[in-house]
Amino acid sequence: MDIKSIVKRTGQTLSSYLTYEAMRAVVDQLRETDPPRAHWLASFSSSGNLQDGEAYLQELLRANRDLAFRIMTVRQHLAEEVLDFLPERVGAAIAEANLKLRCAHLEQAVGWGEDRGRDFKERDAQA
Amino acid sequence: MDIKSIVKRTGQTLSSYLTYEAMRAVVDQLRETDPPRAHWLASFSSSGNLQDGEAYLQELLRANRDLAFRIMTVRQHLAEEVLDFLPERVGAAIAEANLKLRCAHLEQAVGWGEDRGRDFKERDAQA
Repeated sequence: MDIKSIVKRTGQTLSSYLTYEAMRAVVDQLRETDPPRAHWLASFSSSGNLQDGEAYLQELLRANRDLAFRIMTVRQHLAEEVLDFLPERVGAAIAEANLKLRCAHLEQAVGWGEDRGRDFKERDAQA
Repeated sequence: MDIKSIVKRTGQTLSSYLTYEAMRAVVDQLRETDPPRAHWLASFSSSGNLQDGEAYLQELLRANRDLAFRIMTVRQHLAEEVLDFLPERVGAAIAEANLKLRCAHLEQAVGWGEDRGRDFKERDAQA
């Protein structure tokens, strides 16, 4: 496994995702203050080019400079607010999700799961 | 902006992305040792259900328990190796990308960019 490349790709994915969240936040703000621009930005952003946040912003800069600058400001703000929480949170979430998946699968394998309630009732009835 | 919800969604995106990277790593390993299983796993994983890493693993657990457990182990390893680097890296990358986008746009706005070379030549010719 090439960890260095994975760090790089994960970083790009995260950066593009924050650009997407910034776009959503700006659309939400505009819905209050300027619905036609909110509609325009939502349409512009639904063409799927948000897979690559940088390419999206380059295109938006040509189409509407003010909105592009606004999204750039918001994504930097989001980066400051959000990033520090992620390592611990995601690390713990993955460990917990793995544990849950293992347990659920073990329960199915030994025939528990949906039948557990019935089993307990049967045991209670026998007692 | 609801920062708490954004942290949550970003965390889920990141967790699903690491599940995707773990699947890729396992496919690469299997290509060396067991090409038919590599092919099977790649086909199983290309159906687009990797948008949600947990749903993907639940499905894979039913279809092939060993591969699901292997991917779960690899994604936990990746989380340990990768996550700590991300906040600083992505924060700096966004700040730098914003600066570059602003500069490139400014250059275009004042008529530099592609014409810059020609301008210098004209100036040199006039001098």
